[in-house]
Amino acid sequence: MTIALPKGFRFAGVHCGIKQAAGVKDMSLIVSDQPATAAGVYTQNLVFAAPVQIDRSRTPMADARFVVVNSGNANACTGPRGLADAQTMLSVAADACGCSPSQGLVMSTGVIGVFLPMEKIAAGTTAAAQSLGDDEAAFLAASDGVLTTDSSRKIAARSLAVQDSEIRLVGMAKGAGMIGPHMATMLCVIATDAALEPADAQAMLRSAVEVSFNCISVEGHTSTNDTVLLLANGAATGKPLTGSDREAFQAALVETCTEMARMIPSDGEGATHLITIDVCGAASTSDARRIAKAIAESALVKTAVAGADPNWGRIVSAAGYAGAKFDPARVDLHINDHLIYQQGSPAEFEAKVVSRSIRGQHETFLRLDLNAGDANLRFWTSDLTVDYIKFNSEYTT
Amino acid sequence: MTIALPKGFRFAGVHCGIKQAAGVKDMSLIVSDQPATAAGVYTQNLVFAAPVQIDRSRTPMADARFVVVNSGNANACTGPRGLADAQTMLSVAADACGCSPSQGLVMSTGVIGVFLPMEKIAAGTTAAAQSLGDDEAAFLAASDGVLTTDSSRKIAARSLAVQDSEIRLVGMAKGAGMIGPHMATMLCVIATDAALEPADAQAMLRSAVEVSFNCISVEGHTSTNDTVLLLANGAATGKPLTGSDREAFQAALVETCTEMARMIPSDGEGATHLITIDVCGAASTSDARRIAKAIAESALVKTAVAGADPNWGRIVSAAGYAGAKFDPARVDLHINDHLIYQQGSPAEFEAKVVSRSIRGQHETFLRLDLNAGDANLRFWTSDLTVDYIKFNSEYTT
Repeated sequence: MTIALPKGFRFAGVHCGIKQAAGVKDMSLIVSDQPATAAGVYTQNLVFAAPVQIDRSRTPMADARFVVVNSGNANACTGPRGLADAQTMLSVAADACGCSPSQGLVMSTGVIGVFLPMEKIAAGTTAAAQSLGDDEAAFLAASDGVLTTDSSRKIAARSLAVQDSEIRLVGMAKGAGMIGPHMATMLCVIATDAALEPADAQAMLRSAVEVSFNCISVEGHTSTNDTVLLLANGAATGKPLTGSDREAFQAALVETCTEMARMIPSDGEGATHLITIDVCGAASTSDARRIAKAIAESALVKTAVAGADPNWGRIVSAAGYAGAKFDPARVDLHINDHLIYQQGSPAEFEAKVVSRSIRGQHETFLRLDLNAGDANLRFWTSDLTVDYIKFNSEYTT
Repeated sequence: MTIALPKGFRFAGVHCGIKQAAGVKDMSLIVSDQPATAAGVYTQNLVFAAPVQIDRSRTPMADARFVVVNSGNANACTGPRGLADAQTMLSVAADACGCSPSQGLVMSTGVIGVFLPMEKIAAGTTAAAQSLGDDEAAFLAASDGVLTTDSSRKIAARSLAVQDSEIRLVGMAKGAGMIGPHMATMLCVIATDAALEPADAQAMLRSAVEVSFNCISVEGHTSTNDTVLLLANGAATGKPLTGSDREAFQAALVETCTEMARMIPSDGEGATHLITIDVCGAASTSDARRIAKAIAESALVKTAVAGADPNWGRIVSAAGYAGAKFDPARVDLHINDHLIYQQGSPAEFEAKVVSRSIRGQHETFLRLDLNAGDANLRFWTSDLTVDYIKFNSEYTT
């Protein structure tokens, strides 16, 4: 495929040696040639990494020029030295890009509690600045530089016509483990050549994250580093978007975020199934979210799907402890369009048929109808397999 | 060992065929020869099983005569038919014991969403009534009849001298999966020959559960059936306990509950480690509980312990998303007495030494000092292994 990149951005991704494996990219740089509006949504973990501390204090902002990212080390739980290291990353990148450190944003992802190897970071940042490009190869290199345990690249792109111009959005994301939905749940940068006011960009990004990155979970462990950034440099449209143009942009932003968000549990560590959970007829969206999250994070639900086992009592009981209000006697449950549970009692279904529908497909669909109100929410998670356990038992030592 | 059984109780455990394997006990009966005070603590799951509905409406009560229990089928999510089946269980047991159905309590555990095989249940109840005994063999048979995926029996006993009499407590518990700490988390019956007023028995049991069964988790999935019952028949002491006698009894009750509670994650499905989590210096007990629960239920913490990996960033970050208040810069963490993290920065420690201390022992000790207040809480969980996943992927089909 050919990705239509937004105007006025350059990208780079390089290997600087934070990751052991030769040639695997571990530093990325995204540069806007002109000052861009930047918005950010961050982890709600009380224990947040140094880069989150810096970016959160800066966004929304009107004059962003670059985002510098390293993978392989999260620079989290590293105290005052970690904060100084993140500031040094910004200074080195600013020097290399010819702008001020205050015009930069920084992201890190990887192991927690280890100090950054600053010599490698500095050399990598300089090398990245020298290899910046505005072509697809450069964008893909940057997209690869943010990955950690991901088995595949996570990118999305949209184009739309507004104000007689074509606006483009591209996004790159990472995430496969330590994914819980109390925040942005991973790293993501979205670049667009639309023009947006800072406060409006922030509102639009928050709204898009709420129905995308905040609707996924791998194991519910909220990370210290989760960050979604939106850079809007206005290179395609001079004036900030308003009215129906703004609405069209917001829809494209939601699509971009949702496309990348789904990729994260789909590529969850060891995952063999992407599970889509529709909670329908809840009394409120927050009730629907609580229930979806409880189902998504139940090890018993996730292992059942991994085993293609329509063990639906685990789904209904997870809804029951979510802290939402509903009448169990009015609940219906469908698994892959098979009615399993109706008005609080078991329905007649062929367990083997349902099991085959799970086993044969990468995607499993659960739909819980509460008949308690009008709120609906869609949520995504991965199944839980032996490979997840093997992987996470052997991660650092 | 010889278990000192309380006076005036008889026990039985039999195989009636709910479980497939020949000879494996699946029905138990506990009978008090005289009316006993009964207290109960139950699951807080909105989706609760028929037996929970009945027992919750009856306790605390003054005239309990029996508890009838089946394993292998939870009688949960079974609608009105499930409720009728639980009432039939009580009627059959009451007939067999020569008392009224209203004097009974009922518990079920096993697969959710399948109707009870009532012919087997009726035959089993009658057989159990015929084999009631007041000796250790009968008690052990009853203890076995409540088990499901447990790999070992869970019992505890205490004796204490009060009012010139010896009072005895014995408890039997089950639980290895679907263990979350929002309630009693499993099935347990404690029998004592002390005399207690119903309201006082209820208060004492609730208080004991709060620091024992409500401080454990295997995977945080709150079950539909969790029930802890206390039967106090007064056969040893005529008058209800007061003053220092009551205090001594409460201490023994807490010890009994704690001893059994610890056995549950220690025997968690596939578990190779019992993890003890001490959260110290929290601003409140509820904050300490939130943090302990988040750590206990983090798949990343649990897989790290399974892999003997001192990946402490997972522990600190779990504390951070628990919803409690503390200053990350004041936190210390010890793993098996090794100082790992001090005042918000990494401490100097030998990862290999810490790893060996985890690998070599069944028990792992985590201690998080928040330095935020005076509240302390001890919590227990199991590690998360490949065998847990294998087991739970293949449970019903």
